[in-house]
Amino acid sequence: MKVLVAGYGNVGKAFVKLIFEKKGKLEELKDIEIGGIVNRKGIMVGYKDQFTVDIEGDVFTAYEKIKPDIVVDTMSANYKDGNPSLSLYKLALKDGTSVITTNKAPLALAFNEIMGLVGKGRLGFQGTVMSGTPSINLLRILPGSEVKRIRGILNGTTNFILTMMYNGQPFESALKEAQRLGYAEEDPTLDINGFDAAAKLTILVNFAMKKSVTIRDIKFTGIQGIKGAYDGHKKVKLIAYADENEIEVSPKVLTPEDPLYHIDGVENALEIMTDIQTTIIRGPGAGPINAAYGAFSDLILLKRNFI
Amino acid sequence: MKVLVAGYGNVGKAFVKLIFEKKGKLEELKDIEIGGIVNRKGIMVGYKDQFTVDIEGDVFTAYEKIKPDIVVDTMSANYKDGNPSLSLYKLALKDGTSVITTNKAPLALAFNEIMGLVGKGRLGFQGTVMSGTPSINLLRILPGSEVKRIRGILNGTTNFILTMMYNGQPFESALKEAQRLGYAEEDPTLDINGFDAAAKLTILVNFAMKKSVTIRDIKFTGIQGIKGAYDGHKKVKLIAYADENEIEVSPKVLTPEDPLYHIDGVENALEIMTDIQTTIIRGPGAGPINAAYGAFSDLILLKRNFI
Repeated sequence: MKVLVAGYGNVGKAFVKLIFEKKGKLEELKDIEIGGIVNRKGIMVGYKDQFTVDIEGDVFTAYEKIKPDIVVDTMSANYKDGNPSLSLYKLALKDGTSVITTNKAPLALAFNEIMGLVGKGRLGFQGTVMSGTPSINLLRILPGSEVKRIRGILNGTTNFILTMMYNGQPFESALKEAQRLGYAEEDPTLDINGFDAAAKLTILVNFAMKKSVTIRDIKFTGIQGIKGAYDGHKKVKLIAYADENEIEVSPKVLTPEDPLYHIDGVENALEIMTDIQTTIIRGPGAGPINAAYGAFSDLILLKRNFI
Repeated sequence: MKVLVAGYGNVGKAFVKLIFEKKGKLEELKDIEIGGIVNRKGIMVGYKDQFTVDIEGDVFTAYEKIKPDIVVDTMSANYKDGNPSLSLYKLALKDGTSVITTNKAPLALAFNEIMGLVGKGRLGFQGTVMSGTPSINLLRILPGSEVKRIRGILNGTTNFILTMMYNGQPFESALKEAQRLGYAEEDPTLDINGFDAAAKLTILVNFAMKKSVTIRDIKFTGIQGIKGAYDGHKKVKLIAYADENEIEVSPKVLTPEDPLYHIDGVENALEIMTDIQTTIIRGPGAGPINAAYGAFSDLILLKRNFI
């Protein structure tokens, strides 16, 4: 099966590396072949260790040229219109080609439109929420239960900053430290203002609670302008929350009894309350290897016909 | 598809109830039919709300009579030889009949022997470890990663008692309270001495780490005879642990930095460290509805061809 890797930044590179590392160890990878990789410079046909442009062109040229069985999208998010990813998914799914993505934007903008095209072509999107820590795929193994409520810490950057602030640092220096360690981007706006967490919440809510919402419907407040992250033993955390009546990202004051209180630094966590029980999962929410594993696990599960 | 429910105690009843509650809501249940239920009194052919013996006989008579497509085993554990469950699984799997179980004993005694018979007949066993909280099935969605280490709180009874002891109660009254609330059995030996946690660890280690061990190979120490469960801010927890060199259940002193420190009462938790990342899941580890959901989720996943 031919895979087209779209985007060849840190996540794309880690994904390709993982495929080659695990090949030979996994039955499911035997017939997997990296048919091509495309980035902003052009298209590399096949995999040759170092990226060298074989053909000028974009993801659509690559798609036509390589005719992949699976598209793996590791491109960065474009929240304006979701493109080129969104158009690529539609094209692929209509062809019966599967899509695996770590790119939140298309799903946060047009979840149900994309899902409506899933058929022979499947859609894996574990990597869009909590990267390699099962969130979307955790919901897949809780079948037949009704999700009543979701609460989560879904953005590692803000959680890292809030943890530093809880430990006494002011916001500005905590942000600088996050940038120094590579946890925050040069322009950290979409993390800080809650938008990134809201995009992830959008995807979760559509998938788990059968709502039909886009990122534009979600209320979000970030951590810009908060004065402190502690109040005695209490901690401030940026909480993504959804129940029957409410979908919102906002800073909340948590007490030590709350399981999410103990999630510090860049770790993420998700609490899923169903009609049966409450389950909480925690793990790394970002990092190239982790996001790559999100896509990698989707690939294996797709080959096992579970996705 | 005809289901034979073996065992009709709290878990068996909750399972059958769940099937009827969710029927009509789930595509996967459309063709599911409770072909029969068997308990110590005899066999009820079909489902009639109240158990009434239609035929005298045991699980093997029931199996021959009903010719099920899926056997759901909710019988209690027999650690002497695993029977009648173990013989029933062998019979069923050899026939290509699938088995879903919440009964730890056969798998703790003969994991690889049973697994060797899986083919057309599949095996679901989520309910044997942490009941409805994904543990076995969580490992299924972490494909292609190598599990390096497992740590868990896998027994709710002892964790409840240790939590009471941490709060100042002596062992004996904590045990009585656990019994009063239905968290401990009349004879709590197998919980208290670590055997139950060791049985679960055995199953996890075989499945996740590709070891070939039985419950008889596992070192276990329980909480009988421990003097206290606190030491300043530290807590004593009964930890199931496995890595490359060691497989053991024993009481450990944990500091507040340890994610397992915060798991109190009857809650269970499992930490899975792989070559990629560390994931922690927590949720109820016991309870008839939760164990029934473990089997129920296996049934749906089996119908989706994931198990």
